[in-house]
Amino acid sequence: MKIALSTGGGDAPGLNAVIRAAVLSAVNRGWEVVGIKKGYAGLLGDDEVIPLTAESVRGIAHLGGTILRTTNRGNPFHYPVYLPDGSCEERDRSDEVIANAKALGIDALISIGGDGSLGIAQRLCEKGMKIVCVPKTIDNDVSGTVTTFGFDTAVSTALDAIDKLHTTAESHDRVIVLEVMGRHAGFIALHSGVAGTADVILIPEIPYDIEKVCDKIRARDKSGRHFSIVVIAEGAFPIGESPSIHGAHKVGEAERLGHVAERLAEAIEGRTRKECRSLVLGHLQRGGQPTSYDRLLAVRFGGAAVRAIAEKKWGHMAALQSPHIVFIPIKQVLGETKRVDPSHDLVLTARATGISFGD
Amino acid sequence: MKIALSTGGGDAPGLNAVIRAAVLSAVNRGWEVVGIKKGYAGLLGDDEVIPLTAESVRGIAHLGGTILRTTNRGNPFHYPVYLPDGSCEERDRSDEVIANAKALGIDALISIGGDGSLGIAQRLCEKGMKIVCVPKTIDNDVSGTVTTFGFDTAVSTALDAIDKLHTTAESHDRVIVLEVMGRHAGFIALHSGVAGTADVILIPEIPYDIEKVCDKIRARDKSGRHFSIVVIAEGAFPIGESPSIHGAHKVGEAERLGHVAERLAEAIEGRTRKECRSLVLGHLQRGGQPTSYDRLLAVRFGGAAVRAIAEKKWGHMAALQSPHIVFIPIKQVLGETKRVDPSHDLVLTARATGISFGD
Amino acid sequence: MKIALSTGGGDAPGLNAVIRAAVLSAVNRGWEVVGIKKGYAGLLGDDEVIPLTAESVRGIAHLGGTILRTTNRGNPFHYPVYLPDGSCEERDRSDEVIANAKALGIDALISIGGDGSLGIAQRLCEKGMKIVCVPKTIDNDVSGTVTTFGFDTAVSTALDAIDKLHTTAESHDRVIVLEVMGRHAGFIALHSGVAGTADVILIPEIPYDIEKVCDKIRARDKSGRHFSIVVIAEGAFPIGESPSIHGAHKVGEAERLGHVAERLAEAIEGRTRKECRSLVLGHLQRGGQPTSYDRLLAVRFGGAAVRAIAEKKWGHMAALQSPHIVFIPIKQVLGETKRVDPSHDLVLTARATGISFGD
Amino acid sequence: MKIALSTGGGDAPGLNAVIRAAVLSAVNRGWEVVGIKKGYAGLLGDDEVIPLTAESVRGIAHLGGTILRTTNRGNPFHYPVYLPDGSCEERDRSDEVIANAKALGIDALISIGGDGSLGIAQRLCEKGMKIVCVPKTIDNDVSGTVTTFGFDTAVSTALDAIDKLHTTAESHDRVIVLEVMGRHAGFIALHSGVAGTADVILIPEIPYDIEKVCDKIRARDKSGRHFSIVVIAEGAFPIGESPSIHGAHKVGEAERLGHVAERLAEAIEGRTRKECRSLVLGHLQRGGQPTSYDRLLAVRFGGAAVRAIAEKKWGHMAALQSPHIVFIPIKQVLGETKRVDPSHDLVLTARATGISFGD
Repeated sequence: MKIALSTGGGDAPGLNAVIRAAVLSAVNRGWEVVGIKKGYAGLLGDDEVIPLTAESVRGIAHLGGTILRTTNRGNPFHYPVYLPDGSCEERDRSDEVIANAKALGIDALISIGGDGSLGIAQRLCEKGMKIVCVPKTIDNDVSGTVTTFGFDTAVSTALDAIDKLHTTAESHDRVIVLEVMGRHAGFIALHSGVAGTADVILIPEIPYDIEKVCDKIRARDKSGRHFSIVVIAEGAFPIGESPSIHGAHKVGEAERLGHVAERLAEAIEGRTRKECRSLVLGHLQRGGQPTSYDRLLAVRFGGAAVRAIAEKKWGHMAALQSPHIVFIPIKQVLGETKRVDPSHDLVLTARATGISFGD
Repeated sequence: MKIALSTGGGDAPGLNAVIRAAVLSAVNRGWEVVGIKKGYAGLLGDDEVIPLTAESVRGIAHLGGTILRTTNRGNPFHYPVYLPDGSCEERDRSDEVIANAKALGIDALISIGGDGSLGIAQRLCEKGMKIVCVPKTIDNDVSGTVTTFGFDTAVSTALDAIDKLHTTAESHDRVIVLEVMGRHAGFIALHSGVAGTADVILIPEIPYDIEKVCDKIRARDKSGRHFSIVVIAEGAFPIGESPSIHGAHKVGEAERLGHVAERLAEAIEGRTRKECRSLVLGHLQRGGQPTSYDRLLAVRFGGAAVRAIAEKKWGHMAALQSPHIVFIPIKQVLGETKRVDPSHDLVLTARATGISFGD
Repeated sequence: MKIALSTGGGDAPGLNAVIRAAVLSAVNRGWEVVGIKKGYAGLLGDDEVIPLTAESVRGIAHLGGTILRTTNRGNPFHYPVYLPDGSCEERDRSDEVIANAKALGIDALISIGGDGSLGIAQRLCEKGMKIVCVPKTIDNDVSGTVTTFGFDTAVSTALDAIDKLHTTAESHDRVIVLEVMGRHAGFIALHSGVAGTADVILIPEIPYDIEKVCDKIRARDKSGRHFSIVVIAEGAFPIGESPSIHGAHKVGEAERLGHVAERLAEAIEGRTRKECRSLVLGHLQRGGQPTSYDRLLAVRFGGAAVRAIAEKKWGHMAALQSPHIVFIPIKQVLGETKRVDPSHDLVLTARATGISFGD
Repeated sequence: MKIALSTGGGDAPGLNAVIRAAVLSAVNRGWEVVGIKKGYAGLLGDDEVIPLTAESVRGIAHLGGTILRTTNRGNPFHYPVYLPDGSCEERDRSDEVIANAKALGIDALISIGGDGSLGIAQRLCEKGMKIVCVPKTIDNDVSGTVTTFGFDTAVSTALDAIDKLHTTAESHDRVIVLEVMGRHAGFIALHSGVAGTADVILIPEIPYDIEKVCDKIRARDKSGRHFSIVVIAEGAFPIGESPSIHGAHKVGEAERLGHVAERLAEAIEGRTRKECRSLVLGHLQRGGQPTSYDRLLAVRFGGAAVRAIAEKKWGHMAALQSPHIVFIPIKQVLGETKRVDPSHDLVLTARATGISFGD
């Protein structure tokens, strides 16, 4: 038996722990393991395929990033090809992927990635490739699983930032707006905001009214609380505007257009005359050591993926349905972005403790 | 409406976040809230009953401990009474508790505590008192809930210790034995040990064979890994011995008898001739700031408890059944210690990656 | 004896530890202590003067921010006065400060603040007020002291960010530019960059050549290191440009003009065709719990300030001249911004290990 | 030019950062570098000598421990030789060390170690070997340098423990005794205790009176503070007893005799009737990632050591004399344990804020 591993999409804390657990589980079964570098690029001659042994994965469980590296541009069905004239076009190179995997003697693949990677895996499975998946999403927006690794670390990093901003906001009587990840789903903003006792939380699932946001800040001011903390998901948008304007930009575009946090801070300062500051947490949320929760979940996913191969669960992904890891068909979750349910107990409790969602 | 809060048993990170969320939720409903200090002692004249307002709970969400203080000796059915001659006897003062709560105009109580507190609450409910509970256990041994606040922080503290010990063990070619909490349930040892890539994990649910433990250490030595990390729950015991000898000691007794970690380190050093060191993590696991996971869960439990009162769920406790908080009758979980299931995927994956349970 | 405390300028981790140590030291001498809120605003009727007792400072040593609050706009010699028509003009209200302090029976003041506060204290001392100072600067740019509290925490926060960005940069083959504080002095960038093994460090003391920066990134790429970390102080600027354009902007202006990090990332991406990302660490550097180093230094400064009063060291500030705390005349350090010496061993070692300063 | 590196004695956070900086500095000069494993064992055939390149030291700066491993039993002047009958005797193998280094073409050695390693280096220098040293001590007891790497991390770990114990002590009305490292010097106890606002600090430099310790605890109890935190250095001892009984035990002996913390906790509980708990922090203080302060200092020491070789400073060690790294003759510091000066400002401030030293 010879299996391969690859990681695709944005990195998330815990990827290396998945890799380590999968490699050790496979090696201890007597299987051979290889790693495909940079998503599928290793299978298309644009990067390497390397052997993975117990030695390769020593001491990596607590490291952020991925030893297999990753990319957002590795969809073999729309693979970027750079032409001699400097331009770039996309080609379907999926058959090459399948042929090259076969040529390398790869019997099965563990694909670790987000919504995009799951879709690719599904299509490759339909063409006969044997793939099991491990879901990966910082934003917690993959359906079918309570959560995935990386999310707890991202929330923890966001909470740490909120704690830091709290003391400085309070000392200076300021409003501070913190922008966190979450283009389509506001889980990071909601979880870190509630844990950090933010005053306002704005998420894509609940369009906000800037006046309601300012009302909350003014009410606090009147009651002697001269500072406020606003946590906003990058995909949040005002009532009446289309999400596409705000949330659905291309990667990197946000940096050029200006972040939502800056625009919100300006709007609040203009309306309340209070000193406002903004901060975009950005890539800090992807990096660093995974929390204990994420390391454990990653290990469980890695071990489960190898069992899934032994059980021939092609086209399935590992999922946490507490307290168990189960395997569910990828088809079931594809295209179903998990989003915050405004009637969830967490939202109710947040409102009950006085947090405003700007609605 | 006037409600009371109390905290009982050993402290756990997150207690203050529960208190804060419950107080704010209640105050925002227009209810009056009081805090009973030191478990039920405040209702028995041995400590205070204090008003709790929005102001009382400002800035406490991230603090460890409990502003209401706590005790392991506050069972009103077996309340310690110190006699003039210095001796101590236990009396049933439950009727006084009920009478004094009534006299103070308390309509309902939120009792935050572990197995002991749940049992007391059930008996007081049977006598007519109106109580809802929030489960609290560092060890994660309360049934009916995926987990409770404090556990993630304890695992995180244990993992941090394992990470620290790893580098020193490796540099010195040593075996290091780390003892963590878990008298009846090995969850802290299992979770931190797997996340920290320990080599041996010993838990009460899987009695161990000291020779098997040493075999693992010797095998590593032979393969060029001259160090090993052993994580042992305080309640773990060798095959053939009775758990009562090891795990079922009184509070504080362990400190006098010598810890299991020291004895295990001596046994390993004697058999393998390798340099061994031991460390007892002890109270570090109870203290400090809760992790983001625990802060959030604590907030959810606090908010849910107030809703439970509004819904008159007397004799129920809040429980996490991911992704929801539900209310379950205390009776259902009483006396049912949750323990590690040796066939759980986490144990399987641990074994698959090469971790020994000494069996 | 009755003394007062005030904090001015941007907040820095450790302020509360200074306050606590000073209050306890004074109270234990039998002195009375008051706190002036918001710099000198409390003495000008724009904010409060509050009594400070042992009880007031309980449990604050590890908290960020300042319980006395602070402001960047409290210079009594140029005090902002808001006119009925909404405009604002500055007036010299220093005599009121002195008179009001006298009226309150304040015998001496401990002023905790940065370069601005030191200057104000010096002028008030010249008018007869009895003041001793505790220097405060995140940037480490106050002369006469090896360092002050807050700097180590800021470096630690920046290093944590670098560690997080490292793993994501490496996984994605990216260049990441991190902007840290340091308008006139590059200590935070230098210390965090060297500790975090950055590849390029840009500071105000060493103007940079964008081509040299890109050369370093290209050289790494050629040697198989496809990612790079660039740490830039907010006041760094290219050779040939004037620092005033970049570094000397007003507070808040940076947010509007765009940060140096974004512009640098764009320039690098344009020249190297490598994927670049930028991050502005901003206020995270001011907030949160002080490190052990800063807590200790803050305590020492607080205790020393009270001894300085007992010794009538008016117009002096506490300073760390390792291993001792000494008192030096404020006059000696006023206007002498401490800056990185390009021939310091740290810069030499940084260069020796391969770090580029873009020169 | 060919140089060698070795690490000896107990590990300290920052060793790998020293190694990395020294290797890169040397390699960039065009020198060849080798690493001697396990102190001098690699030169005596008991372990390896390995080449060290830029590749060998990638990604190690933030890791605890030492990639060269270390030992407390590697003195070549008293080298342990295990005889066929199982016994062990010590022999002088220093001439072999010199001969083998010569045979390997090693021109100079950077020895990183504590007091013991410095003594060995001095004697080998006297026999003609070319050695420069980097001092290493967790306890901060090496003279001639303000501090060394590892100490700040140890203090930080101890402070984190104090913070954690504080909340649990306060919630339970307990006295908690924390034992930290420091056989001859109480710097870790003093620094972490003051930063953590401990109530009692006991260090070898100030013998304590158990009654004075209890007086402090009782006084707190009377004033409504029902808990206390006691930090004790492992080498602290009561007035009238000889330090040798307590502090001067062999490595490992403490674990068998019982720790000073346990005995102190029992004594306090016996006299005050308050519930006491004890904790021995032990090896946690040596492990883990170095703080930013220690990483930076380690890098500076590593870079300086290579410059010392270039300047032929044989028999010298790098030392921090803030803000500079200087080279001082080892002879100057040998045998001069640095100890806490009871008249230092830190001790004065500690007393002024109400901390008792038990005297």
